[in-house]
Amino acid sequence: MLLFKNDEQIKVIPLGGMNEIGKNMTVIEYRDEIIIIDAGLSFPEDEMLGIDIVIPDITYLVKNRDKIKGIFITHGHEDHIGALPYLLKKINIPVYGSRLSMGLLEVKLKEHKLENVELHIIKPREVIKLRNMEVEFVKTTHSIPDSYSIAIHTDQGVIFHTGDFKVDLTPIDGDVMDFRRICELSEEGVILMLSDSTNAERPGYTKSEKKVGVGLDDLFTKAGDSRIIVATFASNIHRLQQVVDAAKKHGRKVTVSGRSMLNVVNVAKELGYLEIEDDMIIDLNDVGNYEDKELVIITTGSQGEPMSALARMANSEHKKIEIKEGDLVIISAHPIPGNEKLISKVINFLLEKGAEVVSSEIADIHVSGHACQQELKLMLRLVKPKFFLPAHGEYRMLKKHAELARSLGMNKEDIFVINNGDILEVGKDEASIKGKVATGNILVDGLGVGDVGNIVLRDRKHLSEDGLMTIVVTISKEEGRVLAGPDIISRGFVYVRESEDLMDGAKQIVRDVLSECEEHNIKEWAYLKNNIKEQLKEYLYQKTKRNPMILPIIMEV
Amino acid sequence: MLLFKNDEQIKVIPLGGMNEIGKNMTVIEYRDEIIIIDAGLSFPEDEMLGIDIVIPDITYLVKNRDKIKGIFITHGHEDHIGALPYLLKKINIPVYGSRLSMGLLEVKLKEHKLENVELHIIKPREVIKLRNMEVEFVKTTHSIPDSYSIAIHTDQGVIFHTGDFKVDLTPIDGDVMDFRRICELSEEGVILMLSDSTNAERPGYTKSEKKVGVGLDDLFTKAGDSRIIVATFASNIHRLQQVVDAAKKHGRKVTVSGRSMLNVVNVAKELGYLEIEDDMIIDLNDVGNYEDKELVIITTGSQGEPMSALARMANSEHKKIEIKEGDLVIISAHPIPGNEKLISKVINFLLEKGAEVVSSEIADIHVSGHACQQELKLMLRLVKPKFFLPAHGEYRMLKKHAELARSLGMNKEDIFVINNGDILEVGKDEASIKGKVATGNILVDGLGVGDVGNIVLRDRKHLSEDGLMTIVVTISKEEGRVLAGPDIISRGFVYVRESEDLMDGAKQIVRDVLSECEEHNIKEWAYLKNNIKEQLKEYLYQKTKRNPMILPIIMEV
Repeated sequence: MLLFKNDEQIKVIPLGGMNEIGKNMTVIEYRDEIIIIDAGLSFPEDEMLGIDIVIPDITYLVKNRDKIKGIFITHGHEDHIGALPYLLKKINIPVYGSRLSMGLLEVKLKEHKLENVELHIIKPREVIKLRNMEVEFVKTTHSIPDSYSIAIHTDQGVIFHTGDFKVDLTPIDGDVMDFRRICELSEEGVILMLSDSTNAERPGYTKSEKKVGVGLDDLFTKAGDSRIIVATFASNIHRLQQVVDAAKKHGRKVTVSGRSMLNVVNVAKELGYLEIEDDMIIDLNDVGNYEDKELVIITTGSQGEPMSALARMANSEHKKIEIKEGDLVIISAHPIPGNEKLISKVINFLLEKGAEVVSSEIADIHVSGHACQQELKLMLRLVKPKFFLPAHGEYRMLKKHAELARSLGMNKEDIFVINNGDILEVGKDEASIKGKVATGNILVDGLGVGDVGNIVLRDRKHLSEDGLMTIVVTISKEEGRVLAGPDIISRGFVYVRESEDLMDGAKQIVRDVLSECEEHNIKEWAYLKNNIKEQLKEYLYQKTKRNPMILPIIMEV
Repeated sequence: MLLFKNDEQIKVIPLGGMNEIGKNMTVIEYRDEIIIIDAGLSFPEDEMLGIDIVIPDITYLVKNRDKIKGIFITHGHEDHIGALPYLLKKINIPVYGSRLSMGLLEVKLKEHKLENVELHIIKPREVIKLRNMEVEFVKTTHSIPDSYSIAIHTDQGVIFHTGDFKVDLTPIDGDVMDFRRICELSEEGVILMLSDSTNAERPGYTKSEKKVGVGLDDLFTKAGDSRIIVATFASNIHRLQQVVDAAKKHGRKVTVSGRSMLNVVNVAKELGYLEIEDDMIIDLNDVGNYEDKELVIITTGSQGEPMSALARMANSEHKKIEIKEGDLVIISAHPIPGNEKLISKVINFLLEKGAEVVSSEIADIHVSGHACQQELKLMLRLVKPKFFLPAHGEYRMLKKHAELARSLGMNKEDIFVINNGDILEVGKDEASIKGKVATGNILVDGLGVGDVGNIVLRDRKHLSEDGLMTIVVTISKEEGRVLAGPDIISRGFVYVRESEDLMDGAKQIVRDVLSECEEHNIKEWAYLKNNIKEQLKEYLYQKTKRNPMILPIIMEV
C-alpha cells in the first residue's frame, strides 16, 4: 500500500448508457484495479442500416486489461449482458452475478461457442474482496428476478450503483429490495451514487408487478372458451409466472412459442425461478390435442418484431399456430419508442383474422420495471450520497433526474450529468470530471464487429434511397480505344423495363464522354471516370430528381 | 332519365383511407356520373426506402374519366389534397372546396406548375347540382379552418361524408359545426354515412382547441425574459392564431421559420384566416434587432423531421437561429406514431444546448383534431344513417367505430368495414359489397410516379442491409479467354481497406470459376455469372454472415 497516496481518487467511467437507452457499462478504477459493472448492447438506430446490434467501444479496457479484476452483473437483461460475449472474446476475465444472471449468460456464451469463462454465482450481501475495493451485491427489484444493486467499498467511502430498479413493495417472489442494507451503506457513507434514470420524467410511483396478475386474472375470466395467447418480454419471468398462475387457476395448460421465450423458460424453470408443474406445460406440437379453452400460448413478439412468433401468427406464417375467430390475444407490454407502428401492424392483422386483442392501453396488463420520480427520490433519501451521477438514460432523463436530486436539496456542483467516456474522479471530499477516454458505438453486423463504419453506412443509406447505376467499359491500353461497352446495369433505381429511354440517354452521355477522351487521347482513367460520374449525375437528376450511386468501371485490355 | 331504372344503386368506392392513415379518397358513382371526395397522400412506410410520398392508384378514374364531374374537397390537409396535383395531371376536372382549401391548393398547383385548373370556392350550404346528384357542403370543425362535411343528395336519399371532424363547441373562429343542417339532412333521410375513425379507440371527448390558448398563455407568462420558440403543424391555423394572440398579449413580435409554415401563414393571412397586424410580424432576418423577451419564433418540426427548421436549430445547422441557454421551446403537437424517436432526439439536443423544452406530455398545449368516441356517437345519433361506413383509419379503428355504432343499436348487417377498392352499392333500402376495383399504393420518388415498384424496393432493401459487390471481367469472344479482371468493387458491404484478405479470397473464387470455364470452353455467360454469384455468395456468407448483392458483369471483346 505504500506505493499509493491515500488521497488518490476513484475513477468512474461510463462506457455506455449515458445519453442513450441501452449499452449500459461502467468502469470503476481505483489505484491499480479496475472493475466493470455490466456490459450491455443496444439496438441499432434507424440510420444504422443492416446492423444487428451495437456494443460499447472497449479500447480503454483492452489497453488496461492487466488491471481488470472482473465484471459484475446487476441483472440478466440484454442491455446489461448483451455485449459480454464480445468483451470476453477480447478479455477473458471472471464474471460475477446472481444465479439467474449467470444462467442466462451461460446460454448466451454457448451460442457464441465461448468456453472457459469463469462464472461466479454471488448471493445477496456477498462481498468480493479485491485489494483496494470490496464489491458487494445488494438485492433490488426490477422486471427480472435476481436483480442487484452493487456497492463498492473503498477507503474513500462507498460507491453505490442502483442498477435498474423499481421499488416494488409486493414483488411476485416476495423478495423485496434490501432496504436495511441500503441504509447501512448510507450510514457507512456513500460518496457517489449512480442511479437508473429511465423513468425520471414520469411522476409518481411505478405500479407493482402484482397489479398485472389481477389484470390477467380478469381477462382469463372473461375469456370463457376462447384460446388465450399472451405476448410479453421473454425475460420478465415474474410476468411469465403470473401467466402460469392464471392458467392454472383457470384450468388451462401452457405452451411456449419463440426461441428466446423457450430459452428463458427453460433456464428459469431449471433454476427454480419459474414454478410450473411438468404436466402444466405442453409441447407446441401437441396443442392440437387440447381444446381452445384449455390453452394459453405464451409467445414473443410483444414489440411487433417482424420475425417474432406473434408477428408470424398474425401473418399466417407460423407453422404451428393459426389465429382464428375468437382467439384472445393479450399483449402484456408497452411499446418501446420506435416500435409503435410495428405493433399496430400486428394488432391490425390479428383483428382482421377475428381475434380479440387487449393491449396495455386498455387493461392493467403491464407495468414498467423502472422507478418513477417518487421512487427515485426515495432512493436518493435512503442512500444520501455525497455526489450523484444520474445513469442509464437519454439526456432528457439524466437532466430530469438531476433536477429531482436538486429538489431534495443537493447542490448543483455535487451532481454530474456526463457523457460516455467522461472520467469522473471522486474521493471522499471532492468529485470532478477529469478528461475522457475513447468511447463510441461498435456496430455488429453478422460476424463483423466494428468493420462497418461511417463510410459503409453512408453508402448503404445512399443505396437505400436511390439505388445504383454501374457503367462498365473496356478500353484498349495502347490506343485508348473503346473495345466493349458502355454497359449499364442499375439496381434499386428505376424499373428498367419501363425506363428504356432513360437508359439509352445515359448510355449516350457515357459514349459522348468516351469519344471526347478518345479524340483528345486522354488516358487518365480517374479523370474519365469522374467525368462520367458528374455528367451522368446531372442527367439522371434532371430526368428523375434522383441521385443513384454511380459506379463507373474501366477495364483495360 | 328514361335510360336508367329508378332503383339503380349508388356505388361508393374508397380508393384510399381504409385500413390506413392517410391517402383519403372516395369515389361516389351514380348512373353515368362520378364525383370524387378528396385526393390525399400518405407518407411512406419504413420499408418504402427512398420514397417521398404515396398516392392512391387512380386507374379506375382514368378508365371512367368521361363520367367524372368534379372533385370535392373536405379540407386543406395533405392527407386530403396532397395527391391532387398528380390526379389533375392525368384528369383535368373542376375542383370544389372552401376558400382556404382552394387557397392552399393553389400554392400546391403552382409548385407543380399546373395551370388551367378550374377551382371553385364554395360556401357552406352551397349546392353543386349534377344530373343525378346534388353535392352540398356542410360546415364542420377540425384542426384547420374552413372544413366541410359533404352531403350528396340523390333520389335514393342522402349520402353524408363527415370528412375529418371533431365536435369543437368553442372553436377559435367561433364558427361551430352546422348542427341544424345536419339534423335537417337526417330528417331528409341519410341512407349512408361515412365517418372519420381516427380516434375511434379513444374514449370521451376531444378537448376544444381553445384549451390550448390557456396552456400557451400560462407558458408565455412563465417565460419571463426568455425567447420563445413554438413548433407546431403548419396547417393548424387556429393554433397559429392562438400563438399570435398570446404573443400580442405578452408584448412579443412573431417571426416564422420553415417553408411550409411560411406558405401557410401567407395564404392564411391573405385570405383573412389568420389575424395578425403587419407590425406584429417580423422578418426572420431581423430577429437580431429585438430582445429575447420581445420574440416568438413559430417553426416547423414538431414531428422531429430531420430537415425541419426546429431540427436544424437543435443541430446548430439553422442559418438564422442559434439555440441558447434559457430559450423556451414549446412543442405544440403530439408525436404521430413512428416519429417518437425523431422528436426525442430533437428534444435531447435542445436540452443539451440549455433550452427548456415543454411538450404536450407535460402541458395543455395540444389537442387532437379528430372526434373521440362520445363525439362519434353523437354524430351517429344526429345523422341517423340507415347504413354506416367507418372511414379514415387503420382496421383497428374502423372496427372499433363499427362497434360504437352497434352499441347504439345499429344492426351488424347495416355496418360495413371494407377495404380500399371494395364497391359498396347502396340504395334507399339495401346496401352490399359488390366487386372490387383496382387500388394500391402509387409511390412517388422524385419525378417518378409509380416507376418504383416491388422489384426496385426489394433491391433497395437488399442494398441497404448488406451493400453490394460488383465483379467485372473482360473475356475474348473468340477464345473465351480472360483478358482483364476480375475486378471487384464493393460498396456498403465492408470497410475495404481493412478487408483485403476477404477481397483477395473473393477474387480467387472468381478466378477459379473462370479457369474452370476456360478449361471446359464454356461460353454461356449466364451460366458463368450464375456460378460466380452462387460461389461468392456462399463464401461471403461463411466469412461474414452477410449477403451483399452480387453483380457479376462480363464484357465481351
